[in-house]
Amino acid sequence: MPRFAMILEYRGHGYVGWQSQTGQNSLQQGVEKAIAEIDSTSPSIVAAGRTDSGVHALGQVIHCDLQKVWEVGRLRDALNWHLRLETIAVVQAALVEADFSARFSACRRAYLYRIMVRSSPLVHQAGLAWRRRRPLNVDAMRTAAGLLVGRHDFSTFRSIKCQANSPVKTLDSIVIEERMASHGERELQIRLEARSFLHRQVRSIVGTLERVGTGLMTISQFKEAFQSCDRTRCGTVAPAEGLYLERVDYDPDPFERA
Amino acid sequence: MPRFAMILEYRGHGYVGWQSQTGQNSLQQGVEKAIAEIDSTSPSIVAAGRTDSGVHALGQVIHCDLQKVWEVGRLRDALNWHLRLETIAVVQAALVEADFSARFSACRRAYLYRIMVRSSPLVHQAGLAWRRRRPLNVDAMRTAAGLLVGRHDFSTFRSIKCQANSPVKTLDSIVIEERMASHGERELQIRLEARSFLHRQVRSIVGTLERVGTGLMTISQFKEAFQSCDRTRCGTVAPAEGLYLERVDYDPDPFERA
Repeated sequence: MPRFAMILEYRGHGYVGWQSQTGQNSLQQGVEKAIAEIDSTSPSIVAAGRTDSGVHALGQVIHCDLQKVWEVGRLRDALNWHLRLETIAVVQAALVEADFSARFSACRRAYLYRIMVRSSPLVHQAGLAWRRRRPLNVDAMRTAAGLLVGRHDFSTFRSIKCQANSPVKTLDSIVIEERMASHGERELQIRLEARSFLHRQVRSIVGTLERVGTGLMTISQFKEAFQSCDRTRCGTVAPAEGLYLERVDYDPDPFERA
Repeated sequence: MPRFAMILEYRGHGYVGWQSQTGQNSLQQGVEKAIAEIDSTSPSIVAAGRTDSGVHALGQVIHCDLQKVWEVGRLRDALNWHLRLETIAVVQAALVEADFSARFSACRRAYLYRIMVRSSPLVHQAGLAWRRRRPLNVDAMRTAAGLLVGRHDFSTFRSIKCQANSPVKTLDSIVIEERMASHGERELQIRLEARSFLHRQVRSIVGTLERVGTGLMTISQFKEAFQSCDRTRCGTVAPAEGLYLERVDYDPDPFERA
């Protein structure tokens, strides 16, 4: 059977997260239901990342085996029609080799975390970013973030529910961009890239960096917390609503992206 | 009584528009209800622009007279608390002179229209932009748009319900910016500035420019339609969900904006 890979966008609000759980509304279930409408074998799907409840995606990738060789534009449109009542869309589809795995072939995952620094509640970005009222010292956050790049034990930033075999991961990069939004407000976009991440790693890192930004934690306290490999020294876990699975990279790239 | 001006952000979806109408949910009513919670005189408010049903704001400006001289940060926060169930927020407040009028002192209004060019339905930007599937020729749109700058009779782009005395307006500028969004998609941001606008003028212009972008209308047909001053030669009126009252300028600026 021909295998297809697809890039998905979704809004995480109202779902229990990516993974199917009996009797609960998961993103995986939403997508599988749509696929079942166009393929009577009701194929199951495999995703690059199992995002948590409330976490968004700009570029989740899945694969599945279909009965028919679809023209990819038609496949995308057919699935989007069946997804019209969900906050999920297929952005791109591609026919891939039979041994392609959205999960195991991924060579890099990129997450984006958005923080809006403003006094007023969010309106247009409500549910799409973490609002912080206090100004953040971005230089201090960048210095602290720089300590995380490379191969390290990330136990401090790992959920106690994490099922990975080892807390050691290689963080390829963490970049903090600052943008002016309207009315002199600022948006911080924090991007992290790695082959794989621990459970809650990005939100734990962002929540702790935010403490550095407000001055509640010094850079040396951040460094000690990180090096202690002690979960209890992690700052607040930043809320799901600011987090996006932005992109998953493969080599070769089945999607011929820009 | 001290007079205050405020910058408002709102999402237009679910409101009949700015202006109060008996028994219907208007933005004006939403804001006046919040103000009545903090000021027993239940003052009425005056806005810079009466946005249509579904139109958003990033920078609507209002003024009202309150009993008390509020510290502006506290005023903003108190109103935002009472607005928490609306999709409206006070972004900034300022104490102004007694003769300041949000409407009549305005020297320039800026509208933003957002078009997303992509094949898939909108997810994160759903309700916040107009989605067009077909690629748009931005150069052709810019050439057509350039014909509108200056003092002209805008009857072609004027709603039959428009109550302005004259169809002659001066359009100060119209700028079309193209941005790359994720997955190689494009966003067009069309910004128009003028002292004042006719009813539906921006959406009529954008809907007609979109026809030029797709090639359904040539630049010379656009020019003829504009010069004919004939409403029936206007293209589709672009939907409200892409339109934002972005900014209102005053001289001097009561908000000390960047």
